Amino acid sequence: MACVIGDGEAETGPLAASWHSNKFLDPVHDGAVLPILHLNGYKIANPTVLARIPESELDELLRGYGHDPVYVTGDQPAAVHRAMAAAMDTVLDRIHAAQQRARGGGERERVRWPMIVLRTPKGWTGPAVVDGLPVEGTWRAHQVPLDGTRENPEHLAMLEAWLRSYRPEELFDAAGPPGRRVLAVVPRAAAAGRRNALLAAASCDRRPRPLRGAGRQAGQLHARTHQGPRRVAGAGDGRHRHPARLPHGRPDETASNRLQAVYAATGKAWQALTLPVDEHLAHDGRVMEILSEHTCQGWLEGYLLTGRHGLFSCYEAFVHIVDSMVNQHIKWLRTTRGLSWRAPIASLNYLLTSHVWRQDHNGFSHQDPGFVDHVLNKSPEAVRVYFPPDTNTLLSTADHVLRSRDYVNVVVAGKQPCFDWLSLDQARAHCARGAGIWEWAGSESPEREPDVVLACAGDVPTQEVMAASSLIRRHLPGLSVGGQCGGHRPAAARRGASARHAGA
Amino acid sequence: MACVIGDGEAETGPLAASWHSNKFLDPVHDGAVLPILHLNGYKIANPTVLARIPESELDELLRGYGHDPVYVTGDQPAAVHRAMAAAMDTVLDRIHAAQQRARGGGERERVRWPMIVLRTPKGWTGPAVVDGLPVEGTWRAHQVPLDGTRENPEHLAMLEAWLRSYRPEELFDAAGPPGRRVLAVVPRAAAAGRRNALLAAASCDRRPRPLRGAGRQAGQLHARTHQGPRRVAGAGDGRHRHPARLPHGRPDETASNRLQAVYAATGKAWQALTLPVDEHLAHDGRVMEILSEHTCQGWLEGYLLTGRHGLFSCYEAFVHIVDSMVNQHIKWLRTTRGLSWRAPIASLNYLLTSHVWRQDHNGFSHQDPGFVDHVLNKSPEAVRVYFPPDTNTLLSTADHVLRSRDYVNVVVAGKQPCFDWLSLDQARAHCARGAGIWEWAGSESPEREPDVVLACAGDVPTQEVMAASSLIRRHLPGLSVGGQCGGHRPAAARRGASARHAGA
Repeated sequence: MACVIGDGEAETGPLAASWHSNKFLDPVHDGAVLPILHLNGYKIANPTVLARIPESELDELLRGYGHDPVYVTGDQPAAVHRAMAAAMDTVLDRIHAAQQRARGGGERERVRWPMIVLRTPKGWTGPAVVDGLPVEGTWRAHQVPLDGTRENPEHLAMLEAWLRSYRPEELFDAAGPPGRRVLAVVPRAAAAGRRNALLAAASCDRRPRPLRGAGRQAGQLHARTHQGPRRVAGAGDGRHRHPARLPHGRPDETASNRLQAVYAATGKAWQALTLPVDEHLAHDGRVMEILSEHTCQGWLEGYLLTGRHGLFSCYEAFVHIVDSMVNQHIKWLRTTRGLSWRAPIASLNYLLTSHVWRQDHNGFSHQDPGFVDHVLNKSPEAVRVYFPPDTNTLLSTADHVLRSRDYVNVVVAGKQPCFDWLSLDQARAHCARGAGIWEWAGSESPEREPDVVLACAGDVPTQEVMAASSLIRRHLPGLSVGGQCGGHRPAAARRGASARHAGA
Repeated sequence: MACVIGDGEAETGPLAASWHSNKFLDPVHDGAVLPILHLNGYKIANPTVLARIPESELDELLRGYGHDPVYVTGDQPAAVHRAMAAAMDTVLDRIHAAQQRARGGGERERVRWPMIVLRTPKGWTGPAVVDGLPVEGTWRAHQVPLDGTRENPEHLAMLEAWLRSYRPEELFDAAGPPGRRVLAVVPRAAAAGRRNALLAAASCDRRPRPLRGAGRQAGQLHARTHQGPRRVAGAGDGRHRHPARLPHGRPDETASNRLQAVYAATGKAWQALTLPVDEHLAHDGRVMEILSEHTCQGWLEGYLLTGRHGLFSCYEAFVHIVDSMVNQHIKWLRTTRGLSWRAPIASLNYLLTSHVWRQDHNGFSHQDPGFVDHVLNKSPEAVRVYFPPDTNTLLSTADHVLRSRDYVNVVVAGKQPCFDWLSLDQARAHCARGAGIWEWAGSESPEREPDVVLACAGDVPTQEVMAASSLIRRHLPGLSVGGQCGGHRPAAARRGASARHAGA
């Protein structure tokens, strides 16, 4: 996959951290990423940092990131295009050679992946000077290089000359669509899949692959035994059968969130130095851990685009780190839904653990249920929030969200051991309805309407309500306690839409 | 200021971006930052990236960041302490020399600031092996190296031996507080201020400095003329008088948010290469622009801690990038309020512009009013949100929030030209009440109760409501339109607390 990075964007935190992704990319089983750092020198109103440090310093930085940069610099289009084509050939050959070496089966050594630094003017080939001020090669090219074209004939003429410089008659048919010459360079799906990894993410023929009955292999769990729901989910949601398809992205918290059973199926991706004391590190591991929620989010977004599935597990309090990225992904989902040539992709699935109810030794700093608010103010067309009350409802939920398409799904479920209230079949029925009446948890009867109805959503609230029901029955036996509504709430319920959750 | 960076935290986006802060630090007028990268090798459950790349690669990275690293490595406490003391002397001498050179008045050259890489074992001097598994020097030292000490006498004995190894009898008086030997190394306030910059941020004697009448110098503005509220705020909120005290932090958006009048008072901080085409760049500029909201937030948080004031202006849609940092700052404010030795600090002030109502050419991608939701679900003890409806209310609000202490203040005000509804005196009175009845905007009279009351908050809603009032009066002259409530709403109002806003 080629990944073009503007030098403005390169100043952002998420991008600055992502350079270290190369320590997690397995040259044997993964594709390759070719970063192209485009230094055009300016952002909205300022020079960029990376364009204004000496090239020797930039070179140290990129090598320090673990890359081997190739530089393409110039402002003459034909010469730069030739140099860029040559650079592409060079780096693709190097990527191919590195993959061949790694796949030859000898001793593993870390790959110093190539990259390209492309240095061209900002607003290149656009208007050079407007109203006496330089535009091409300056920040003025960033937003609206020529304004007021309706009132200003000089600007209009410059705009026309600029647009005509692209020679639209060679690019488009008379009727409007791109001409045959242009369409000839669009890869055909089959060829793209086979030839190289560069086009995988851009290719639109990738449909989410089917998952086989994830919930089925989890087995029946007996109600009212203590289980850690996360341990069970870690062991049984299909990862073992499809190890190459279901990566966990998370900020260094798989074990802390009690999902360590996943290591029976796959390890943690790691290409840097390994020491004897390390556990579960593996070149081809499908668990991706780095202490950067931004990087995990970026990895997963890109991975879903290739037609695969994934899960982002995170402490509830810290998932706010990716609030902004989630917003933009939701906007992107809503926008792309209307595009006929975009196939649906697997949903972006969050499992929020270490939640607000149980911060046994971390306290205030680790508490924040606000991500649910953040997601629920988005359209129910694009988001769903789930609060499974026990292990089997979590398994049914996991199965459901992994099969779903084009949503952002948030599953909130604590990591601490808790009671199992429902069998797997009961859990599926409960999830399919979205909410349930648990007659057995109350004391109502066909002859008598309840005096009190207890309602809840989520694991800890359910446990507390069950305790309350038990206490009421013991201490106030004359009171009829109503069937409890089990906590399982699609976001749609809050919007007045139908509260529906299709189970396995 | 010394800044100790864990190698786990170094994987995060905000920290990865912050290394480039050295391009904004002026050796003549600013203090110095000494980064100490502590490589102890592990985070919660994994090795860290920076600890597992070759030291030559790490060295390239840190040089690429613009630093000159000094390495301190070891696992023998006495030897490491001596080496660390020597390294501190070396780097402080280099910092001093760099500052002297820069302050000598010769030609400016960029400083390659020194830093320290400290490589010691994780859980150093803690229990080496617990239950047969290595702990010191591994990730197992991260959270609870010795558990179950109440039930496990062996663990209890190890815990006691570990804690006694710190020789508490030498550190504490018999009554409990730290002994004189310890207190002797605590800097006295006066000495700390003069001697070096290292202790500035930690020193607790820094109180927010007073601001002189910010609103006063803005001058009276005539109602009902077109002004760009942001242009006026940029020109007149005291920055000119106190250029060293009031930096703007923002992600490359000062001009885009129409605050460019600030450049009449100060430039944009920049120590990297400057070209003739650049505008407003200055070694000692007090506007800090980088395309990283995280870095802006970090800069401002640190700056406020030194007792100064600042303002973070941002597109409304993109301030979500710092959601998590804001949460943690609010938690920190609420916690430190209860500490007697913590002086109040200036509030963290956001000016959100380019807001949801007017995205004239950016559209869906640049719309998101959700930061207001994000802040309003916090306690009113710590947050305030303001929606000034025009220029003079914005000036009064700016004056107020800059004087306030220990809040997170969010001011939402668009950048587009709008009507001025109130004179500065009217605006102050309006802001002091928090809401107002604008009799002149309706058609009610003492003799007649209004048939319709129009209410609003914020600049664009006010403009729309004024237009509605005008249309009603023209087309439905028989209807009495009630005095409008001007849009100015402290967060407290939503909580049922008193809606109060102390003006100038």
